[in-house]
Order: sequence, then C-alpha cells, then structure tokens
Amino acid sequence: MAPQLDSYFKQVDHLSGSFIERLRKAVAIPSVSADEDRRQDVVRMSEYLVSELKTLGAHVESRPLGPQPGKEHLQLPPVIVARYGSSPSKRTILVYGHYDVQPALKDDGWATEPFELTIDDKDRMYGRGSTDDKGPVLGWLNSIQAHQEAGVEFPVNLLMCFEGMEESGSEGLDEFIEKEAKKGGFFDAADAVCISDNYWLGTEKPCLTYGLRGCNYYSVEIKGPGQDLHSGVFGGAAQEPMTDLTRILAGLVDTHGTILILGIAALVAPLTDEEQSLYGHISYTMDNLYESLGSHTSVHATKEQTLMARWRYPSLSVHGIEGAFSAPGAKTVIPAKVTGKFSIRTVPDMEIEHVNRLVFAHVEKAFEKLGSKNSLRVSCQHAGKWWVASPKHWNFTAAAKAAERVFGVPPDLTREGGSIPVTITFEQATGKNVLLLPMGSSTDAAHSVNEKLDRRNYIEGTKLLGAYLHYVAEEPMTNGA
Amino acid sequence: MAPQLDSYFKQVDHLSGSFIERLRKAVAIPSVSADEDRRQDVVRMSEYLVSELKTLGAHVESRPLGPQPGKEHLQLPPVIVARYGSSPSKRTILVYGHYDVQPALKDDGWATEPFELTIDDKDRMYGRGSTDDKGPVLGWLNSIQAHQEAGVEFPVNLLMCFEGMEESGSEGLDEFIEKEAKKGGFFDAADAVCISDNYWLGTEKPCLTYGLRGCNYYSVEIKGPGQDLHSGVFGGAAQEPMTDLTRILAGLVDTHGTILILGIAALVAPLTDEEQSLYGHISYTMDNLYESLGSHTSVHATKEQTLMARWRYPSLSVHGIEGAFSAPGAKTVIPAKVTGKFSIRTVPDMEIEHVNRLVFAHVEKAFEKLGSKNSLRVSCQHAGKWWVASPKHWNFTAAAKAAERVFGVPPDLTREGGSIPVTITFEQATGKNVLLLPMGSSTDAAHSVNEKLDRRNYIEGTKLLGAYLHYVAEEPMTNGA
Ligand SMILES: [Zn+2]
Ligand SMILES: [Zn+2]
Repeated sequence: MAPQLDSYFKQVDHLSGSFIERLRKAVAIPSVSADEDRRQDVVRMSEYLVSELKTLGAHVESRPLGPQPGKEHLQLPPVIVARYGSSPSKRTILVYGHYDVQPALKDDGWATEPFELTIDDKDRMYGRGSTDDKGPVLGWLNSIQAHQEAGVEFPVNLLMCFEGMEESGSEGLDEFIEKEAKKGGFFDAADAVCISDNYWLGTEKPCLTYGLRGCNYYSVEIKGPGQDLHSGVFGGAAQEPMTDLTRILAGLVDTHGTILILGIAALVAPLTDEEQSLYGHISYTMDNLYESLGSHTSVHATKEQTLMARWRYPSLSVHGIEGAFSAPGAKTVIPAKVTGKFSIRTVPDMEIEHVNRLVFAHVEKAFEKLGSKNSLRVSCQHAGKWWVASPKHWNFTAAAKAAERVFGVPPDLTREGGSIPVTITFEQATGKNVLLLPMGSSTDAAHSVNEKLDRRNYIEGTKLLGAYLHYVAEEPMTNGA
Repeated sequence: MAPQLDSYFKQVDHLSGSFIERLRKAVAIPSVSADEDRRQDVVRMSEYLVSELKTLGAHVESRPLGPQPGKEHLQLPPVIVARYGSSPSKRTILVYGHYDVQPALKDDGWATEPFELTIDDKDRMYGRGSTDDKGPVLGWLNSIQAHQEAGVEFPVNLLMCFEGMEESGSEGLDEFIEKEAKKGGFFDAADAVCISDNYWLGTEKPCLTYGLRGCNYYSVEIKGPGQDLHSGVFGGAAQEPMTDLTRILAGLVDTHGTILILGIAALVAPLTDEEQSLYGHISYTMDNLYESLGSHTSVHATKEQTLMARWRYPSLSVHGIEGAFSAPGAKTVIPAKVTGKFSIRTVPDMEIEHVNRLVFAHVEKAFEKLGSKNSLRVSCQHAGKWWVASPKHWNFTAAAKAAERVFGVPPDLTREGGSIPVTITFEQATGKNVLLLPMGSSTDAAHSVNEKLDRRNYIEGTKLLGAYLHYVAEEPMTNGA
C-alpha cells in the first residue's frame, strides 16, 4: 500500500516561502572552502546548519577535523553529523550533502550578486550554492519541518552527514566516514545511503543515478636542457622536449575518441542486451547534447552511443601542458621541461593499477621509439575508482516510486561520466547500497557563473526527499544486490 | 700601412677607470622599456647620453617618436642621433645601439642589485644593461674621448643612432631609419653601418657576424565547444580540440630537428664547398654547446653540424599552447579553444610568403586528414626576414684587421640563429653594408639574471671600436659585394 503523503506534500507547498527564505539565508553565507580568507564563513555556514537542525529537534554534533594538511595554521571546517529519530522499529537512512561552495565573484560574469538569492520571473533562483549543494541539504531539513508541521510521523531514523570541504577535495572526510561507519560509530546503524549532490539529465524528468566513472590522472614530464633556451640561438642544435611531448600526446587518442593505448579496450566490461535496452528509454536527445556543448562537435551521431560514451565507456582527454609558453602573444622559447597532463575516465572492469601499467608501458614505448636524448617521467597524479550500483536494489526501487509519485513519470536510470568520490567511500565503509538522488536540473550551472536552482526543483525536490523516506521505510528488502 | 693606434690604445687603458664610472652611471638608470612605470627612467637615460655626447663636442638631437601605438597616453622614448665630425674628406660610418634594457628584479634570482654595477674579483661587471647594450653604446663615446685626450685625429665622420625601445619591439624605429636614410636625412652620408649589439661565440676570441636567421611565427587555433567542458561529463561525447592540436603539432618536426613540412627543405640554399670550409676554423666545441644547454641533449654530434644547424639551416620549435590547462596540479578540463604556437627560423633562400604557403597547406591538410568537426585557423603572427652579408666586403675586412690588431688573433666569422631586425632595416634603407661587431662574450647572460660584461671585453672592446674606425677609414673599397 502506497504511503499517505498528501498532507506532507500540502505542507511543503504551504511552507515553500519559508523554505526559500532558508535557502536565501544559506546562500548569503559565502562558504567558499577553497578561499582561506573565507574559512570563517564556511564555519558560519556550519553553525547555521547546527542551529536550524537543533530548532527542528535533531541531535547535532559539530565534529572538528583538525588542521588542513599543508596549512597547519588553518582548521578544516567541521563535519556536521545529526540524527533525527532513533526508533528501533524504523529503518535508518544515512544522507550526505555539503555546505561549502565553489568560489564566485560578480566580476566572473554573474548577472546578479552571487551571494544574494535572486529569483527571476521564471522562478529560477540564482545564487552560488543554490543547487550545489545548499538546496539539497536544506531539502532534508525542509522535509523534517514539513512532517512536523503536518503532524505526519517521520518514517525513518535519519542520519545526516554534511561536510564543508567537498569543493576542495573533501580533506579528512574519508577517514571520518570510515571511523563512524564502524561498530558503535555515528553511521553504524545505517540501512542504506542517499546522496543528493548531482543533477537530472535534462530539465523535465527526475532521475536516479546508479553509476559513476572513475578517473586516472597522468603527468608526462619531458626534460632536456638545464634551462629554457632561445629558439633563435639553439633551434636546430638542441633536441626539444616539446617536440617529444607533442608526439607522445598525439598517440594517446584520436579525433573520434578512440583510445590508442594497447589493452585498454579489452578491460571494458562487454555491453549486455539488458544494459543496452536501458538507453533507448532515456529522455535525452542529440539536441540536448548540442545545447550543452554549445556546438555540433559530437563524437557520435545517436543518443544511445552518446550516453554510453559518457557513462559506460572510457574516455581520454588531454588537458594541457605545464612549463610551455601559454600566454597570448608570441614568445620564441624552447621550454626546457614540459609536463603534459591527461586523464582517463574509467569504467567497469578497469582496475586502477592495471590501467596504470598499460599507460606507463604505452608512453615509455612511444618515447623509446623517438630515439630522444631527453628524459621521460610518466606518473599517475591521482586515481579514483568507478562506481556502479544495482538499480534493482530496494533503495533504488523505493526512490523510483517516490519520484513517480511526485513527478508523475518514472525516473530515468542514469549514470554519470564524472566522479563523486564520497559515493564509493560510503559504499565501502558502510557496506550498504548508495543511491544518488538529484534535486537540480542539467541547466543549473553548478561550478559556473549564474548557478541557479529552479523553484520547482527545490520545492518538488523537498517533496521527493520526504517521499523517498516513506517508500524506503516500507520497500521489501528482496533485492539486496 | 697599418694605422697608428698605440697612443689611442694607451689612452683607453689610462681612462679605463672613468669609462667604468660612465658605465656605472648608465647601469644605475633602470631604463626598462617594457615597463610603463619606468618610461621616465628610459627618458632619463636618453638625457644622460645627450649630455655625455654634448660634453664630447658631438652634434646631438633627441628625436621624439610620438605616442606608443595602443597606449596613446604614453610617449615613446626618443631616438638619439648624433654626429661627430663632418669632414668631406673622411668616410662616414653609421653606428647603432640601444639604451633601453630588459626588466630586472633582485627577486628574479640576481646575486647582486641589478641596477648597481658590481665588479667581482674576476673583473666581471654585473648589472642590467652592462652588455646589452649600454657597454657597447658607451664604447663609441669612450672611443671619441680617448682620441681627444690622446690628441689623435678621429679617423671618420661618426653618425650615431641610439634607440630606447629595442627590447620592446623597436616601435617606430623602422620608419625613422627609412626617413633619415633618404637624401638629405641624418643618415644620408653613411658609407657603411656597424651595429654592436650581439656576442662572441665563446669567451676568448672576437668575432664578426655576417648572417642572421629570420623567423616566421605561427598560430594554429582549434575550436570546438562553446565553452570549456568537464571531461567527466563530456569525455567521449565531444571531439576535443586538444586531441586535434597535439596531432597537428606532432606532425611538424621530429625529435632530430627534421622539419616535416613538405617543400621547406627544397627552399634552403645548397651548401657550397667554400661555405663549408668556413666552419672548421671556428673556435667552438661540442663542450661549449653542452655547457650552454646545461645538458648533452644535442641534435648533432659534431661542431660543424651544430653550427650549421644554428646558422644556415632552418629549424622549427613548438613553443606552447594557449587556452589549455597550464598550471601545476590536476584539472579535468576539456579546453574549448586552444592555440598552438610554433615558429620556423628561416635562412637563404626561404621567402616569407613562400614558407607561409607551405605551412598553411601542411597544417590544413593534416587537419583535414583527422576528419574532425572542430574548426581550424592557422595564421602567421609575425615574420622577419633572414639576413646574410658578404664577409669579404671592405667593412668586414677592416673590422677583421682591427680585431686581430686588438686581440692578436683573426676573428671568427659567425652567423647567428636569432634575428636582429634592425640590421635588415639599415641594410635596406641605406643600401650600405652592415657589420655586426660584438663587444660582449657568450657568457654575458643578456636578457637573463646576472647579466654582466667582462672588464676586458669593455676596455679592449672600446679599443676595437676605435681601431675599426681607423681601418674602415682606409680599407680599399675593392669588395663592395
Ligand atoms: Zn556538489
Ligand atoms: Zn640588445
């Protein structure tokens, strides 16, 4: 029997004005984690959350993480953990979000003040952090409040984990989660995990996200002369590191996205008929792609190929070169040491170490073929594993029912090309299923200028989060995969 | 009959202390032409020259060049023109130098204050502009003074042209020279030209320079998406401009310096036996090269091949990429628009326009082969022609005798890989032979930190400039080639 949600939904609509005020106050705190000078604003934002959660009757703790590695004078912002309800007869759901934001300056090209929530005539709510990730974080708080004011019993025990360093590498968070997920830790009782920190594939239809690509990031350094040389004086006499580097970078991938590194393709899990059948239903068109690219320069011609290329196949991107001339104008330098940067987005079943071995062997062999006197160093700067969950798990089927209940359509089952490292940390630390349940839409411009959250996504999203808790409280645990 | 130079030489030695003081005062004026805030120091340096030249009895004019193009509020530094002697029975020699300098900050890594002439125990005189080009400019003034004080008649009419924007593109100079070289202009009477603004090939032996390579500088812009993309989200779905650019840059030149652009090699003037025979005598070793490279990463194994590669064969250097990620660290960007920069050092008989046509055709064909949906734009940012004079011209044979007289060895006849555009301007405007007669040595670090001029090069160099004027006054004009 479907949960009784009408009075909850009605109360969300009734409170929508105050929910927007809550978001307005949050956006007004410039909690930019990358900016040392804004660290006290990040802390102020954590205090705002603590205060709001206490008012709602939650048990709240502000957990210090110690000094920031490499900046011993600077304390990391705390992790806010909170518990709402602790009934042994209810399921326990752990949710995650972050209260820090990307940097933003009016001068970057914002049409409005980035730290003033500004609502236009199409109900788009502009402001840094509106969609990433203050809106979703407050969605959980809103949902508690609407249950209280509607007099509807809260369906689960809710554990919350809100961090303040997500946009700056989540310093210290992995260890924290691992510790708290252990026996007796704050997250110990969790039956499932839900993260609301990504986006719909489009603007109309909700989605559940069950997979993320990993990322192996590489440096190829080529070094020759002791210092930069003048090309007039030494051009033709010295072997040039840039010549070698361009030839190595050119052998990694072709214009059509085919990775040229021997052995990579063989690591990719074959496409099953069942998986292939998922893509046709997804609400996405090539015009959606062209719009987000701002061009027609796609690799593939069809929606299915494009989505698979983004979600379930690896890709290789050359990002740039450090140490070479990169400014406007003309400089006749022979750079002495240049470092090419590229990364591979990884998918099942590509293991980090296996990919590294193939990349190193490929680059070393390519360099050897050049017969250069320069020296080569290739290394993996960092690597994060891909993640794929089963969309048939009860955590997902519950969320799918909630989404259909709120939006009237079954959600798309999506994967994402980028990585959200905390996903895999929660999965491994808790051993429980992790669901990504986005609130914002594809046009929200997280990390960019004019970030926004549509009023509809915020208010219906608050309904969605609450509805999800009802469905997940009742969903038969038949699919534990 | 060889000129009587003993009393001139003796007087130079006698005045050496005051010549060094003259250089000290000049180095103390930070006449950095690239720095707008230092423009009045550049002007102050011009006034110092005017005052010194007047004291020596020269006719001096400070010629304004008007506002700096693109910076209409900023006046260009003046060109100082001067005439010392105007006897119809004497030859007229036009000399050129520049009184502006490269930027320098102690923090750049200078061991001493850059704008304080500091002499160490090996008589190396450190200071910005010491060798480039204040030492040589003052060398001409010193030579006038030593003639006066020794009571030796000055052998020629000396025309001087000292500019204050050489390190910043010699704005406005070409038009000025062209005008003054015309009938009735200040340089009209010149019989030959001498420029002292380059360097010996080594540290022991003087040289005369009779050739310079030209430079064609290119941009290859590749453009795809409307804005930078996240490689997680779009990697595999979008054709990436960096992929195309690395493949184009990789096809320009190989590790061993061979230019891969069809048709370039055929433009190079063949090596004659006569020219080849010049290289063996030149005082230069592979160890000299290794020392200046700071490595053993040479293209060639022998001195002769190396010198020819630097002086008489073209070279192609890839300088860098604008628009890609170039900072330290890891950024997962797909750059939307990237511009590769490369240049070709040109030699006889490569014509600028012909080279451009071959480069454009090569790049366009390489791009076409990629089958990319991105767009390409290749252009020549700037081009300067190569220059080669006949080292048998009387201007050179006179200078060779002077150098042998001062240093006891015949000078090396050298060319340079880099360009000194004013050389070709003087040659074309006056129609006279231009000689490059360097004062400083290969270790002087012009344009770098710890620029210096050895006391020996300054004092013997002053003797050389004076001796040159005596020999050039008498040299039979049999080789006018
Ligand atoms: Zn986020
Ligand atoms: Zn110079």
